[in-house]
Amino acid sequence: MQRKSFSTMQCPIARSLERVGEWWSILILRDALHGETRFDQFQQHLGIAPNILTRRLNGLVDAGLLARKRYSVRPPRYEYVLTAAGRDFEPVVLALFAWGNKHFAPEGKSLLLINAETGARAEPVLVDRRSGEMIARPAFVFTAGPAAGPGIRERYPAVVRKRATRRAS
Amino acid sequence: MQRKSFSTMQCPIARSLERVGEWWSILILRDALHGETRFDQFQQHLGIAPNILTRRLNGLVDAGLLARKRYSVRPPRYEYVLTAAGRDFEPVVLALFAWGNKHFAPEGKSLLLINAETGARAEPVLVDRRSGEMIARPAFVFTAGPAAGPGIRERYPAVVRKRATRRAS
Repeated sequence: MQRKSFSTMQCPIARSLERVGEWWSILILRDALHGETRFDQFQQHLGIAPNILTRRLNGLVDAGLLARKRYSVRPPRYEYVLTAAGRDFEPVVLALFAWGNKHFAPEGKSLLLINAETGARAEPVLVDRRSGEMIARPAFVFTAGPAAGPGIRERYPAVVRKRATRRAS
Repeated sequence: MQRKSFSTMQCPIARSLERVGEWWSILILRDALHGETRFDQFQQHLGIAPNILTRRLNGLVDAGLLARKRYSVRPPRYEYVLTAAGRDFEPVVLALFAWGNKHFAPEGKSLLLINAETGARAEPVLVDRRSGEMIARPAFVFTAGPAAGPGIRERYPAVVRKRATRRAS
């Protein structure tokens, strides 16, 4: 019941969660983004049982977020390298980082994001790449895209511009 | 084994996942950010079994991300309203949205983020609020903060500035 597949859902958020929808996978990606590639590194840092780690790594490979590469022939040994899609998960990890630091660090901040060159503390916020505006509702909203099916269209109707709104409603 | 608690981990990412570390909770927050507040709305939109929804909503209330408010006295009925911490989860949802749209929408985009005023399509990227620089490694890195314990300090040492690096290593 709990593992209902979200792949039939059109929502890109649901589809993303289909790939990394449980804790370990996201923490594995966090560590991969931090430069870890080897089974032992993941296991040691996460304190995760080997059989669970194997399953999660395979799941991330199947999902196209990690690629398995052999780095030793005898004995055969593999490492796990981020794919392009895996690397692009970084903003999600950074958004989780900022949220956790803001709300769940009552004893003070254990981890900071800084500019590597200057050492200045960074504060990640989402902006629109084109306009540079900070992204927040209600200034930015979701709307149905070209590939939307009836479910998404019903939920996220095309946005009517301000001027037209009064007449329409 | 799989439900090992992350609350003892100092990493803010792990602590965030402690709050929303499974699919349904994140999708419930997504819908709450979209304006839904009532049990029936969540249930209908998510297609989730009532007993699971009840458990997840209670979990989000316990985690301080939703607040339960009575909106009808007879019969007693409750709605679920985002707290400040719940509202601040929005960038995570937006980062998941952008990632899903980029990598997991082979048939085209079903959902778009637009500027509500102009209708222009938005592309959320993370920048440093102070400097306006795009956040990506290696220009930005994690480092141990003032409250870091030995685990975090070992993993994320204080960053040595470029000039000093050569001498130090």
